[in-house]
Amino acid sequence: MTKLIQELTNNETFDLFALLKDVKVRTTKTGKQFLDLVFADRSGEIGGKFWDASAQDIENFQAGKVVFLKGKKETYMGNFQIKISAMRLATEEEPHDALSYVQRAPLSKEQLEEQITQSVFEIEDATYNRIVRALLQKYGNKFYIYPAAKSNHHDFEGGLAYHTVSMLALAHDVVRYYDGIDAPLLYAGTILHDLGKVVELSGPISTSYTLAGNLIGHVSIMDAEIVEAAEHLGLHQDDEQVLKLRHMILSHHGELEYGAPERPELLEAEILHNIDVLDAGIMMIQKALDHTEPGDFSDRIFGLDNRRFYKPNK
Amino acid sequence: MTKLIQELTNNETFDLFALLKDVKVRTTKTGKQFLDLVFADRSGEIGGKFWDASAQDIENFQAGKVVFLKGKKETYMGNFQIKISAMRLATEEEPHDALSYVQRAPLSKEQLEEQITQSVFEIEDATYNRIVRALLQKYGNKFYIYPAAKSNHHDFEGGLAYHTVSMLALAHDVVRYYDGIDAPLLYAGTILHDLGKVVELSGPISTSYTLAGNLIGHVSIMDAEIVEAAEHLGLHQDDEQVLKLRHMILSHHGELEYGAPERPELLEAEILHNIDVLDAGIMMIQKALDHTEPGDFSDRIFGLDNRRFYKPNK
Amino acid sequence: MTKLIQELTNNETFDLFALLKDVKVRTTKTGKQFLDLVFADRSGEIGGKFWDASAQDIENFQAGKVVFLKGKKETYMGNFQIKISAMRLATEEEPHDALSYVQRAPLSKEQLEEQITQSVFEIEDATYNRIVRALLQKYGNKFYIYPAAKSNHHDFEGGLAYHTVSMLALAHDVVRYYDGIDAPLLYAGTILHDLGKVVELSGPISTSYTLAGNLIGHVSIMDAEIVEAAEHLGLHQDDEQVLKLRHMILSHHGELEYGAPERPELLEAEILHNIDVLDAGIMMIQKALDHTEPGDFSDRIFGLDNRRFYKPNK
Amino acid sequence: MTKLIQELTNNETFDLFALLKDVKVRTTKTGKQFLDLVFADRSGEIGGKFWDASAQDIENFQAGKVVFLKGKKETYMGNFQIKISAMRLATEEEPHDALSYVQRAPLSKEQLEEQITQSVFEIEDATYNRIVRALLQKYGNKFYIYPAAKSNHHDFEGGLAYHTVSMLALAHDVVRYYDGIDAPLLYAGTILHDLGKVVELSGPISTSYTLAGNLIGHVSIMDAEIVEAAEHLGLHQDDEQVLKLRHMILSHHGELEYGAPERPELLEAEILHNIDVLDAGIMMIQKALDHTEPGDFSDRIFGLDNRRFYKPNK
Amino acid sequence: MTKLIQELTNNETFDLFALLKDVKVRTTKTGKQFLDLVFADRSGEIGGKFWDASAQDIENFQAGKVVFLKGKKETYMGNFQIKISAMRLATEEEPHDALSYVQRAPLSKEQLEEQITQSVFEIEDATYNRIVRALLQKYGNKFYIYPAAKSNHHDFEGGLAYHTVSMLALAHDVVRYYDGIDAPLLYAGTILHDLGKVVELSGPISTSYTLAGNLIGHVSIMDAEIVEAAEHLGLHQDDEQVLKLRHMILSHHGELEYGAPERPELLEAEILHNIDVLDAGIMMIQKALDHTEPGDFSDRIFGLDNRRFYKPNK
Amino acid sequence: MTKLIQELTNNETFDLFALLKDVKVRTTKTGKQFLDLVFADRSGEIGGKFWDASAQDIENFQAGKVVFLKGKKETYMGNFQIKISAMRLATEEEPHDALSYVQRAPLSKEQLEEQITQSVFEIEDATYNRIVRALLQKYGNKFYIYPAAKSNHHDFEGGLAYHTVSMLALAHDVVRYYDGIDAPLLYAGTILHDLGKVVELSGPISTSYTLAGNLIGHVSIMDAEIVEAAEHLGLHQDDEQVLKLRHMILSHHGELEYGAPERPELLEAEILHNIDVLDAGIMMIQKALDHTEPGDFSDRIFGLDNRRFYKPNK
Repeated sequence: MTKLIQELTNNETFDLFALLKDVKVRTTKTGKQFLDLVFADRSGEIGGKFWDASAQDIENFQAGKVVFLKGKKETYMGNFQIKISAMRLATEEEPHDALSYVQRAPLSKEQLEEQITQSVFEIEDATYNRIVRALLQKYGNKFYIYPAAKSNHHDFEGGLAYHTVSMLALAHDVVRYYDGIDAPLLYAGTILHDLGKVVELSGPISTSYTLAGNLIGHVSIMDAEIVEAAEHLGLHQDDEQVLKLRHMILSHHGELEYGAPERPELLEAEILHNIDVLDAGIMMIQKALDHTEPGDFSDRIFGLDNRRFYKPNK
Repeated sequence: MTKLIQELTNNETFDLFALLKDVKVRTTKTGKQFLDLVFADRSGEIGGKFWDASAQDIENFQAGKVVFLKGKKETYMGNFQIKISAMRLATEEEPHDALSYVQRAPLSKEQLEEQITQSVFEIEDATYNRIVRALLQKYGNKFYIYPAAKSNHHDFEGGLAYHTVSMLALAHDVVRYYDGIDAPLLYAGTILHDLGKVVELSGPISTSYTLAGNLIGHVSIMDAEIVEAAEHLGLHQDDEQVLKLRHMILSHHGELEYGAPERPELLEAEILHNIDVLDAGIMMIQKALDHTEPGDFSDRIFGLDNRRFYKPNK
Repeated sequence: MTKLIQELTNNETFDLFALLKDVKVRTTKTGKQFLDLVFADRSGEIGGKFWDASAQDIENFQAGKVVFLKGKKETYMGNFQIKISAMRLATEEEPHDALSYVQRAPLSKEQLEEQITQSVFEIEDATYNRIVRALLQKYGNKFYIYPAAKSNHHDFEGGLAYHTVSMLALAHDVVRYYDGIDAPLLYAGTILHDLGKVVELSGPISTSYTLAGNLIGHVSIMDAEIVEAAEHLGLHQDDEQVLKLRHMILSHHGELEYGAPERPELLEAEILHNIDVLDAGIMMIQKALDHTEPGDFSDRIFGLDNRRFYKPNK
Repeated sequence: MTKLIQELTNNETFDLFALLKDVKVRTTKTGKQFLDLVFADRSGEIGGKFWDASAQDIENFQAGKVVFLKGKKETYMGNFQIKISAMRLATEEEPHDALSYVQRAPLSKEQLEEQITQSVFEIEDATYNRIVRALLQKYGNKFYIYPAAKSNHHDFEGGLAYHTVSMLALAHDVVRYYDGIDAPLLYAGTILHDLGKVVELSGPISTSYTLAGNLIGHVSIMDAEIVEAAEHLGLHQDDEQVLKLRHMILSHHGELEYGAPERPELLEAEILHNIDVLDAGIMMIQKALDHTEPGDFSDRIFGLDNRRFYKPNK
Repeated sequence: MTKLIQELTNNETFDLFALLKDVKVRTTKTGKQFLDLVFADRSGEIGGKFWDASAQDIENFQAGKVVFLKGKKETYMGNFQIKISAMRLATEEEPHDALSYVQRAPLSKEQLEEQITQSVFEIEDATYNRIVRALLQKYGNKFYIYPAAKSNHHDFEGGLAYHTVSMLALAHDVVRYYDGIDAPLLYAGTILHDLGKVVELSGPISTSYTLAGNLIGHVSIMDAEIVEAAEHLGLHQDDEQVLKLRHMILSHHGELEYGAPERPELLEAEILHNIDVLDAGIMMIQKALDHTEPGDFSDRIFGLDNRRFYKPNK
Repeated sequence: MTKLIQELTNNETFDLFALLKDVKVRTTKTGKQFLDLVFADRSGEIGGKFWDASAQDIENFQAGKVVFLKGKKETYMGNFQIKISAMRLATEEEPHDALSYVQRAPLSKEQLEEQITQSVFEIEDATYNRIVRALLQKYGNKFYIYPAAKSNHHDFEGGLAYHTVSMLALAHDVVRYYDGIDAPLLYAGTILHDLGKVVELSGPISTSYTLAGNLIGHVSIMDAEIVEAAEHLGLHQDDEQVLKLRHMILSHHGELEYGAPERPELLEAEILHNIDVLDAGIMMIQKALDHTEPGDFSDRIFGLDNRRFYKPNK
């Protein structure tokens, strides 16, 4: 029976299905080609080398493919790796859907949808409500499976919606504690703030930046989408509600040097920026501490100015 | 009967008691001295000039004193001001307590104390709990009446405790939503993070920086207080709990250039920094928008990089 | 016969028509209101004070109005000013069109249009050509009369189109000298790069920022306009031509800290940014040196990092 | 018959002459020394390893030498390289002049000289004209063969003069379009702005920094040269023309942090800086895109803040 | 008998000679011109106003002139000032030499010369010694009377040489304590580092920047002077000693953003930079504290990043 | 007889005792473990590889241990290394004290103590004197053997005290040359400024940061120690002397971005910062130049903004 990667013990011989998460073609000193691989399933990841790769092998074994693998788990220079005995592509009859091998958000797609839907109900402003619905309708399918980033934070299936749902919880608390906040604007801005990532990124498997992601970026992508949606709904481009919603998206990175075309100049925009920083920071630190021993410092976290975080002994 | 400043109508003649919030001695072109005054009570503030001030007047009418004032409210260059008919110091029999003329937090001292006390109960770690109790006992009286700043945010009586209570509410939410947070450390750090301001600042009336405030700053003041408290409790200076609590205070400004001797390197320290930014930002923006007409931008807010905020029409 | 402001000699008594370019209501020490005015016509500007202004005067004499003025030119503290004898609003029968008193570009509207049209002909790419035509059709009227800025550079009627025409000349030279440049993309990007200013700014008279200008900015305004135009033309949003043209606009400020959501990542975008800097810089320096005596340094130029420029003796 | 590097096909066996552009002595795991080489001729570059290098080989095969090479072109880890069968130094009778193997400017030395000479004619100011002539006479030989940089932009034989000629073309256009520019000053400054590089750099082959280049830099080198030249011509050091010309050189890097002792404070200095940035930027991007496939991004360009540039599909 | 400014008591009527250190022509509200003056002698400074100034008065009473003054010392808005009864220019028979009214260094010109001369003796390297002697011979007269700055530090007669002498004392200590320092290079660099200020500044009275100061700056001025001096002494421009001495001057501001074309890359250059910072800092702080009451903070010091310094009570 | 590392000649076979300064466990391509070692004694350092390391070897040969070594000095890729014939731990009877193999300050512990003691005598202020004595008594043992840094400057046994003694010499000179310096404050601040490093660092052998070092830092560590010492001496926390001494420590890094919670606001604090920079800079440059050939540039120095320094030919 096939195993999960996390279940393997050292020196165990096994069969399993796994996703080829990363594939690099390399050449040995003696000129032979081999594949330097990262295998993944929902339980974890492990590396391995496929020696003497033929042209056909290189053609077959591309990142994003699912393989059936026979091998042995062993130690090499302090790390675990797979010594491969045999490897072939999974067939149509076997569990070959790449998405089912990717790590995903702690909440199911249904749970995420329910929470987003609940917040949409609370957007008691016709303009914001209609724009949000229109864009969720257009991009909803991708919204619930895309990651929130290529690496960094929420870089797993459903990460984008999960990040959004976490921020909505914080947004509700802030609305409860402080006076004078336009809750519909805050919720609408929160739901849309990163939605442009469904155009910026290629998807949840072997995530990369699209050309639109590189040349335009998710901030401007979503800004233009709101304008289009507003036009389809018959709203004038100088409508103050539309301008405010656009401003939420345009300013949510907070600082010009982080790619925000505008700095926050609405109370709700400042709040959106701060809860984004708070949620993303916690996720990055949790992820780094998961790979850290008590009493040690984590690796440096790129998205937090290369700081290391301490994992206490108790 | 005496009035409140906010109740006066234009061209109304009145009697009232007020605090001299700010006093500047100036000289006219013709060489005569006068006082440029700001009067305040809990309802608001208004300016006025006291002409032909004698040496005795200058001696008497100092900032922080309460006066009985007869005058007329009028307009000068677009602003309201008081035309003073007569002014004298309030007597012992009259309402002469400066503190009763200062704006204060929306919650009473008792409400603030109750909420802080509740959070202290939840600090389920003996080390943090004892240190927090010791320092609240030492500085509690001041803690509940001091402002959180000279100007900027929470610059009113009780502002320090009010800021702390607001942050504790957010801290509880974060603990509820995310795994792996050391709640006692987060609550203890939140309660102590700005407590050093009771040494840094002179008090709630005509607030200024003390010499310790100027030369040491509230961050290092509180850091040393924690060390002293820990010593009195018989804790070793290398105790990991003590080091973590000190780190919370030392890093809560987030960036070295904002006067943090350390950048956050604990999950809880990063959270503390972010909820501090969030609460202070909201308070500064609300205060600025209170003085802004719908459809206008506020004055620039120094504590938010001189940004102006827009007050929407609806 | 009426005179132009520039023609007046010191102590000359005159009649003239002028635009009220700037109006400030002030109050004297003794409490009387007066108007602190800046008069302008196409020949230049001069200040003056209108004493004892009645409520009706304040109502009448607003910025943007044209007045008939009797007075005398005199010197006050080293500067020329107008001593006003009489002032009234210009009537419908008199030259009362504010626009005719504003400084304007050295080229006529017709000359500007001709040069822009010529460059549009040279955009030998159907996608770029159609988008540019669509947007010029939508905003052409404003494009030829708007300034390129509120102050700084090209802050005169037609300044926006004049700045664009100057840059097109430089763009043609660059295309001639260097290989591998996509001329249609460069010309299209040049024509559209600042076109969003017709939404960002209020117009050529007493120019101010609109709400869209403040909350969105001309970069994102034009980016969304291109997307809409492309949609109307049936182009897909992932069309590489559309993405490249959007990138030209999004990156033309060059640096994130100058409000560019993207840094230039196309050869043509880098060129566009550089010729924008070159043309704007020359205009700002020429304007500053116009008000500088030979052998002196100009005032500091805000748009050039507060540098002063030297006007040589020869 | 010998081949050019660019003409070789994969697996072709060949004879050719090449320059040793870069030579690194390395040791194998088993302790034997070999040479890691880069071969170059005017058509391009290719790497190769010379195994089992004797002390004599190491002595002979130094960077800057020309060799006669027998070998085979093959692929190694995705890159082409030379498998060397035999290698010896070129003899006096063979084409052994290193300079003839270096890439050079698209214009010949004569064409460059002609264009520079033409611009010198147009310097219709005796002071500038005489200083420029004096310095071209002193450094002319090197000026026409030196590169403009060690790497980055115009890093080929004649690159310095080619960069200057390109900038002169742009300078002429600017003079034609804008009023009030001192053309002689602009042309003189353009010709001299980087001339100090003939002292800063070692020459066109295996270019490195000289001690003067490291300790003084080409900006200050040329500044002092102008002073000396002016003195020889009998000009006073406070002569305004001399000061202005020095200022052109001292400020042409634009920003203090890029090593400009002065920021531009002359109209002509600002123009010189901007056309320098424009020409250098285009050259760097063209060079990077030459090594990029359509649809890909280039490597990061150090001289352009590590940006990558996109090479469109069409 | 005439008095010194510092000797006057409040309300004292007096005669004295003083330098017009600063003169501003102003106009009263009623249109009359008056002079706003700063009087100075070696004991101190005091302000005063000369009412109803005629055209002849304005012509006569220019900054840098010495006047005979009758008046009364009085208080105005908390500051002392002179009420002028009569004022005329000092005659040739009276003490009319402006320089004798300027504050000067604590050491006499002879003392300064002696100490500089002593250090020159210790420059036991022919190259450095000859260059230093040549430049002191050329500029010695100015060197001993110029200030080291327009304002900031050592802004008094002889300040330039005094600053140099103080730094030489520190330089000698450093040579005594640490190994491997090239003392002749350090002393030569110290003597020459600011000597370019005799060209950059106009002189000790009413100091301003010259055109050379504005366009070239004292760093590049002295760099070129060293090259010229070396050439006159027959030294080659690539002589390592000359390059090192130039590097000392070019790098003494330490950071590119402070106008240093080179960052220090010689041990002696790093030392020179640091003792320059140390000496200038102490002088600026001492000057600021001289005008500060014990227990107060000084005004902000521009040259020290606008920091204020505390003057202790004991 | 055993040798010192520095005495070995190439290809010499030898016996010696050495400290294992750095130990890395690595694995060969074929999966065997070996130790990559750095050996050190007071004369210098050299690398070597211990092949086929058993689990026991890895257990025994840890950083900080002293070994007896038989081997041969040889060259590998241009560097010297040890080819190990035999290696075992030194016994109790052999010279096995790690500290005796570490490089140490040029002055003996006794010399350092004498100089510190002398300066303590000169602290003629009871408050400063008592605090300094108390803290030297508490930490004196470590103070005289700790390094001043993990790497960078004074990274040798006794480096902390040696750095302090060097700075005291400079401090005395400054006191001698300038008026108005509080010498006791300057000396006390100098002695204590880096004393917190005895808590921040682990010690002179294989120096690393402690948890307190990472989370608190030596600046805040010493600040709190002063407060405790003052309390034990019965001094009030608002005592101006105590505040000033704390300020010296808190501000000695000079800039917030270098981890100073306060910028210097006392004359003595500015001096302390500057002599710290001066002494540390000289030490870093001397160390770098010791490993540089005349005519070459050193490696980049991290603590000096990655500058390289030139080692002159004479």
